[in-house]
Amino acid sequence: MQELRTDVYGARHQRVREEMKKQDVDFLFITPSSDLLYLLGYPAHASERLTLLGVAQDGAFFVVVPRLEAPRLEHWRNRIDMHVWDETESPYEIVARLADGAIGQRVAISSHARASVLLELLELMPEASFCSANTVMRTLRMIKDDWEIEQLRIASERTDDVWEEFITNATLAGRSERDVADDITNLLRKHGLMTTTFLIVASGPGSASPHHMTSDRVIQEGDSVVFDFGARWHHYTSDLTRTVHVGEPSDEYRRAYETVLRANQAAFDAVHPGAPCEAIDRAARDLISAAGYGDYFIHRLGHGLGLDGHEDPYLVGGNSLPLQPGMVFSDEPGIYIPGQFGIRIEDTVVCRASGGERLNHCRRELTVMQ
Amino acid sequence: MQELRTDVYGARHQRVREEMKKQDVDFLFITPSSDLLYLLGYPAHASERLTLLGVAQDGAFFVVVPRLEAPRLEHWRNRIDMHVWDETESPYEIVARLADGAIGQRVAISSHARASVLLELLELMPEASFCSANTVMRTLRMIKDDWEIEQLRIASERTDDVWEEFITNATLAGRSERDVADDITNLLRKHGLMTTTFLIVASGPGSASPHHMTSDRVIQEGDSVVFDFGARWHHYTSDLTRTVHVGEPSDEYRRAYETVLRANQAAFDAVHPGAPCEAIDRAARDLISAAGYGDYFIHRLGHGLGLDGHEDPYLVGGNSLPLQPGMVFSDEPGIYIPGQFGIRIEDTVVCRASGGERLNHCRRELTVMQ
Repeated sequence: MQELRTDVYGARHQRVREEMKKQDVDFLFITPSSDLLYLLGYPAHASERLTLLGVAQDGAFFVVVPRLEAPRLEHWRNRIDMHVWDETESPYEIVARLADGAIGQRVAISSHARASVLLELLELMPEASFCSANTVMRTLRMIKDDWEIEQLRIASERTDDVWEEFITNATLAGRSERDVADDITNLLRKHGLMTTTFLIVASGPGSASPHHMTSDRVIQEGDSVVFDFGARWHHYTSDLTRTVHVGEPSDEYRRAYETVLRANQAAFDAVHPGAPCEAIDRAARDLISAAGYGDYFIHRLGHGLGLDGHEDPYLVGGNSLPLQPGMVFSDEPGIYIPGQFGIRIEDTVVCRASGGERLNHCRRELTVMQ
Repeated sequence: MQELRTDVYGARHQRVREEMKKQDVDFLFITPSSDLLYLLGYPAHASERLTLLGVAQDGAFFVVVPRLEAPRLEHWRNRIDMHVWDETESPYEIVARLADGAIGQRVAISSHARASVLLELLELMPEASFCSANTVMRTLRMIKDDWEIEQLRIASERTDDVWEEFITNATLAGRSERDVADDITNLLRKHGLMTTTFLIVASGPGSASPHHMTSDRVIQEGDSVVFDFGARWHHYTSDLTRTVHVGEPSDEYRRAYETVLRANQAAFDAVHPGAPCEAIDRAARDLISAAGYGDYFIHRLGHGLGLDGHEDPYLVGGNSLPLQPGMVFSDEPGIYIPGQFGIRIEDTVVCRASGGERLNHCRRELTVMQ
């Protein structure tokens, strides 16, 4: 994140305070998470040692950080009130003191904070009213700026390159899912994406389980194989799914594949500013239902994408949030026939003033591998 | 975890209920975490979609799981009350209903659960009293059985092998930390440890920052370089730190290195059943202080190790918990001179009836590399 100029953070800090005011939030407590990365560019990992950024609506800005991690925030020292705690101190008491107990105040805490953190603070600040910081943070983070979209574009393009190279060179039959997954990991690193966000290789009956764990199962002729993976570029993650068939597919399989492909396109075509999130889901779902597979599309169409692999906006029935330019999300319809096969095709899409723009361009048509 | 026989889980379920009774906990709510892995062998990843294992002290046992992940729990279907939720349902309402609102009851929730989960449940179950599940779970998990120690031993031995191969073959000067870290990652995979838990390469002034992020800094002659890394074997993680010097070290550096090495040994020698955790920390700290480096050992001596990289017991001042046979923890004293160098030496240690047993055996003496 060092490529981001400090004025980017300054602007974000101002916007977060404005949003707190709008939502009547007095304090914002942010623990290690993508929210902390967004506000400080600090990729801290959550641990049992508390790190917490506190933002008061009226301007106070403090960080509570364990001594052994304080050097990593050295560059913020002159701009943020730093409170370094030692191993035998209680960082929770420091937070409660800095917020003055937040008596009668509304405190928004990171939705990703550990429950243990919230339990400690509930005990020490019994007269504060806690809510999720997500309502404040998602307003800022849902709309990506040009720099953020550029990072997502680079992550997506390199992920596309990995896929094209993989289907050109790899064979599947006779190899384990795990072994094949290693090919992908190696290619991601070769293409400069050092951090794999996740990687699913799901074959045969396992392909009908959308969140299958890559296993030692040996891939066979006749299998459908779903590849769903993503990797980070400057902390922003790609997310690509492609499904291939090992050997010649049946007519039934071809029909299901074409249906998913058309659903992916129908959802993409429905993207435009002002369209409710659920309408994009509906566009794909209606098409799949009309083809007779409605019961087999068992998940939402998509999720937002950025510093988190899953974030707002969610493209799901019941979400009437209107799309806005700068929103980035997945378009990933699927059909899963239990015990037989699963098919999913996923691209990352940006909502632009003129409609959708895909960040993935690798081959979407049915690919037969050996 | 498929190597674990199902009677292992049965025994854990019985023990967890006994512990709940002892601690007056009516319900235990476990979300994706090492606790879930411990109780169900299910390595689910936390996401915005709720998965929750509920255990009632009186016997009820249920899982709330999103439809697209339900296939992964198929083998538990006959033994646990399964509640599969669809994308447009509220899983929190299902949990509250299953616990009957837990009115007037004490509910222990995973310390690693997301705060957003706790906030939802606080709202739906206002008459329940929530506490951390850690007090129940740590009692079970702190004492490792033979099978668990065997996994930790294998993870540790392979990590040792990686280190020995690395120091035999690698050169450091002129290469970036990130590039060198890739060597370690490749070796971990070569030695069959597919999941790297974490990997720190901290060189020069960065070595004085205990939780330094591996960077693009180019390692130079005269640098101290701290390597702290771990990887998993059947979900159990190793955790090894070694520090090397690039080129001939100064007398001052040698003196500090010897001090850390002796502190590591002093702590190890202090391990025996009944010794308070803080006494082990104290043994190392006293030695470092006597050598004049007391202000530069800025973190606790160690932490428990198992399914989590950091878990109970913590070897830190103020923790009077007595060690017991079967506890596994790190012994990792360090000296960090800001702007100059850092040194840390860490082994994984098991408390046995007769005293400590190290799981790491790779070279501990000062190693000079080029």
